[in-house]
Amino acid sequence: MNKEFRKQESNTRGDGYLPGLAIDAVIFGFHDHQLKVLLLAYKNTGLYALPGGFIHDDEDVNQAARRVLLDRTGLTNIFLDQFYVFGDNSRYDPEPLKAIMLARGYEPPTDHWLLKRFVSVGYYALVDFTKAIPTPDAISDTCDWYGLESLPHLMQDHRQIIQKALETLQANLDQKLIGFNLLGDEFTMGELQSLYETVLNKKLIRAAFQRKILSLGILERVAKKFTGGAHKAPYLYRFIS
Amino acid sequence: MNKEFRKQESNTRGDGYLPGLAIDAVIFGFHDHQLKVLLLAYKNTGLYALPGGFIHDDEDVNQAARRVLLDRTGLTNIFLDQFYVFGDNSRYDPEPLKAIMLARGYEPPTDHWLLKRFVSVGYYALVDFTKAIPTPDAISDTCDWYGLESLPHLMQDHRQIIQKALETLQANLDQKLIGFNLLGDEFTMGELQSLYETVLNKKLIRAAFQRKILSLGILERVAKKFTGGAHKAPYLYRFIS
Repeated sequence: MNKEFRKQESNTRGDGYLPGLAIDAVIFGFHDHQLKVLLLAYKNTGLYALPGGFIHDDEDVNQAARRVLLDRTGLTNIFLDQFYVFGDNSRYDPEPLKAIMLARGYEPPTDHWLLKRFVSVGYYALVDFTKAIPTPDAISDTCDWYGLESLPHLMQDHRQIIQKALETLQANLDQKLIGFNLLGDEFTMGELQSLYETVLNKKLIRAAFQRKILSLGILERVAKKFTGGAHKAPYLYRFIS
Repeated sequence: MNKEFRKQESNTRGDGYLPGLAIDAVIFGFHDHQLKVLLLAYKNTGLYALPGGFIHDDEDVNQAARRVLLDRTGLTNIFLDQFYVFGDNSRYDPEPLKAIMLARGYEPPTDHWLLKRFVSVGYYALVDFTKAIPTPDAISDTCDWYGLESLPHLMQDHRQIIQKALETLQANLDQKLIGFNLLGDEFTMGELQSLYETVLNKKLIRAAFQRKILSLGILERVAKKFTGGAHKAPYLYRFIS
């Protein structure tokens, strides 16, 4: 759902949208040893959910994912990546969507397109949560960052979607690091290690981490500037462009 | 499409299927330094395609992928993995499906569900092509292995789907190696290196390959059996269970 929700709600057959296909976005936020995830709360329902929505019938699925994220949260320029298609029949659960429409004072017909089975394409991203200020849309009370250890009750299978996204992020961090663009142009080995420790949720041994990360061949050391106290300053690194 | 194709063809509204969602399977075959891919040729059309099909409205998407592969090729027990959702609007092209139905003597109405826009979930696997003997189904002339360097003309965007699957296979081989179950219970370092060289399509340096693969921590060396000529036999390895 998104700013277009009123249109989607009264459009009972879903004209102009791809039927049965949705998008859910798991936006992880990282800062100072904390890992969070972006969630919406729906007005008058007590339901929490991942930002998600539907695809126009003349729109690329990847393009729809970026549009939905912008509409639902105000976030732009996020490096969104597909990670899994959630397509089990057992995840079919029309009640939350029905509750959201009822809370808005709209009683949908039982064959309303939004109450049919949906397959959802999962997207994920990792951002600095101090730089990404989410803005709730018209149908959400709040759009906010939640710690992974203190998630509220989530609708449908959104908790499993977050878990799968986290496993994907942990397994692919080496490959995605550059695209996520999290650390500024230059950073210390300690800052990079802190990012890994936060995402992997464990302490790493400094020497082993440094050896491993340098063996990826994606980093170059920046020449030290003269700072007066240079002998104490840590080396800076940047990604090889 | 699959053995059910007659049913799907005459069922112009697609009742009983998820609308607009398809599956395409890229089955790579590996043996003795060769990498191939499994393709179907459609009767009387000159069209080549990946094995693919549709999802029953009460079926898991992953389950549909295994069913489609079995129905279209006779292959079972394949470790199929999702790798990407092909959802660009520009890939919409109803002509091949129309041609297949016309070649079967059936003229579809213009609003036939099979002629609408489809989003396709891509699956891939890697098998030993000498152990997997594909069997064409009722609507295919042939179901056969093709070398990646000599692919026939493929319908829609199937060539790009193969390319994306190959890149995924190359990037994830370390992680998928055990699941693919390609090498038998015990194998030599040379056999494993040959698998990597074939998939990556390049020669690797023996010492560097061995160091890298052992650092993954997934292999254990099997105690040597006394063979009489044991001093010449290479070490055998197996995956740590």
